[in-house]
Amino acid sequence: MANQAKTINQKGDLMSYRPDIKLLDATIRDGGLVNNFGFSDEFVKELYKTNIKSGVEYMEFGYKASKELFDVKEFGKWKFCDEEDIRAIVGENDSPLKLSVMADVGRCDFKKDILPKSESVIDMIRIATYTHQMPGALEMINYCHDMGYETTINIMAVSASREDDIAQALDLVAKSPVDVIYLVDSYGSLFPEQVRRLTAQYCEVAEASGKKVGVHMHNNQQLAFANTIESISHGASFADATMSGMGRGAGNCFMEQMLSFLRNPNYKLTPTLKFVEKYVAEERAKGSQWGYDVPYMLTGALNRHPRAAISFLKDNRTDYNELYMDLLNELS
Amino acid sequence: MANQAKTINQKGDLMSYRPDIKLLDATIRDGGLVNNFGFSDEFVKELYKTNIKSGVEYMEFGYKASKELFDVKEFGKWKFCDEEDIRAIVGENDSPLKLSVMADVGRCDFKKDILPKSESVIDMIRIATYTHQMPGALEMINYCHDMGYETTINIMAVSASREDDIAQALDLVAKSPVDVIYLVDSYGSLFPEQVRRLTAQYCEVAEASGKKVGVHMHNNQQLAFANTIESISHGASFADATMSGMGRGAGNCFMEQMLSFLRNPNYKLTPTLKFVEKYVAEERAKGSQWGYDVPYMLTGALNRHPRAAISFLKDNRTDYNELYMDLLNELS
Repeated sequence: MANQAKTINQKGDLMSYRPDIKLLDATIRDGGLVNNFGFSDEFVKELYKTNIKSGVEYMEFGYKASKELFDVKEFGKWKFCDEEDIRAIVGENDSPLKLSVMADVGRCDFKKDILPKSESVIDMIRIATYTHQMPGALEMINYCHDMGYETTINIMAVSASREDDIAQALDLVAKSPVDVIYLVDSYGSLFPEQVRRLTAQYCEVAEASGKKVGVHMHNNQQLAFANTIESISHGASFADATMSGMGRGAGNCFMEQMLSFLRNPNYKLTPTLKFVEKYVAEERAKGSQWGYDVPYMLTGALNRHPRAAISFLKDNRTDYNELYMDLLNELS
Repeated sequence: MANQAKTINQKGDLMSYRPDIKLLDATIRDGGLVNNFGFSDEFVKELYKTNIKSGVEYMEFGYKASKELFDVKEFGKWKFCDEEDIRAIVGENDSPLKLSVMADVGRCDFKKDILPKSESVIDMIRIATYTHQMPGALEMINYCHDMGYETTINIMAVSASREDDIAQALDLVAKSPVDVIYLVDSYGSLFPEQVRRLTAQYCEVAEASGKKVGVHMHNNQQLAFANTIESISHGASFADATMSGMGRGAGNCFMEQMLSFLRNPNYKLTPTLKFVEKYVAEERAKGSQWGYDVPYMLTGALNRHPRAAISFLKDNRTDYNELYMDLLNELS
């Protein structure tokens, strides 16, 4: 086998404070996929206060989903993130915490639902896209940028994309006004060495075009934290995390671990530990389920969308080998 | 901050099969610390059969603990691993699976309890030591080697050792007849970049003296799997894992993840998935508790023995911030 010598450019070390690193709390948005966005106002208000106290830089409130495509009666309000609902939590957001929402290409009436920045407390719009939707993503980026927002592009499921397609997408992104290019492991399928290679590729494009790189990882293989810190150690600046990893399926990188890992003197772990003790415990007691489990490991290892694992667990099944055989059959 | 350029020698890649890699199932030994070695004979027999079917190379039965120091009535039999107890499970062990036991320096009557290899079905003795016990470890290595066994030295808690001490210990180990030098993260405190540096250091010593490097990681920071694959990707050959990570506190690297990750065509995931479905579930139903939780993250992140976290959880406490404050106070 090859004994490969590789030069890896590490940025900072375990003890250094890199002011370019920003934490984004995605609990309501990714966690909303677990409980159909059914958070109590108290949960959201306390999370907002906790993020401010902890020194977290961004908090994502949810999606700007189309009310034409989705019935507002079937989802909690954070699927839609109406301006007045966010303001009911944050007022004028007189704090250093910036607010973001996510908009999916093809699922957002952005020309109708996204107000000019001067009329909104939202600071950043994150555009989530697959590589085949790039023209739609670029249109939304341009629109949101022109409306005065910070923007990110979150290119999803890159573990299942052809490398050609990723390279082409990055070429297009480089020419756009987007601020942050997100490396997203939707399937929780990437290993650290792949994350280092992809981070290097994303950073090369970002540095040449004056942008930053962000990272959003899933925990199917218990690698969300490892992949997040590997990516930031190799140049990414924006890191997504959620309270105790709350998020679809196996969930995300844990906010409490990021606050414990990073050396930014503004970060405080105590408010987040207290939030986890009370509010994450209550959310679990309500029946919300997420986190590493065998079925998620299988879909992650086989580079598949987690839907088969989610459905398997919803049916209270434990015949893991049957799921494994089914997944292998679908591949063949 | 420094922008460090580092050359990392990677061994193999994600698709290659490295015949030097050996999996060691430590479920009974490290998992025995969770249930006081109270496994049913059925559990141990089925685990033995599962490891054979899965293609795992080594299975550890437990400790060779001193019956002078420990009361046999207070522990299950795998704390002591009498020859006849192992034979009751494996007979003459007519299989490719090799058997190991662990012996702690200062807690094993090795001259009395370790039989000549010709009288034992055990293949490998693993000597667990702290750096300050090195002379005792070397005496045991020489003894076990002379008795005909494969040997490993498992230098524990290196995250809390001075680098000088690690270097001196490795110098001594290089001159010994030991076969495998284990990098052990007892506190679950190491980050992947530290694991890569330590692996490089261990491999340099091992390669110069004709030995192999092994890796034993704990999951306090959800890094057991990540650190294990980073270490083997950078040169380690022996990897410890346990069924669903069963082991003290936050537990270990998951065997099902290793079997899913490695590309050795002899490895089969199905037998392990079936074992996890039935026997790991039964063990949890009996009340055995292990796995990632906030208190273990705190002791890991603060580079401390997990005992405070184990005791915190045993008392059914959830006031995480109090534990955090206590741990910080002890450091100051």
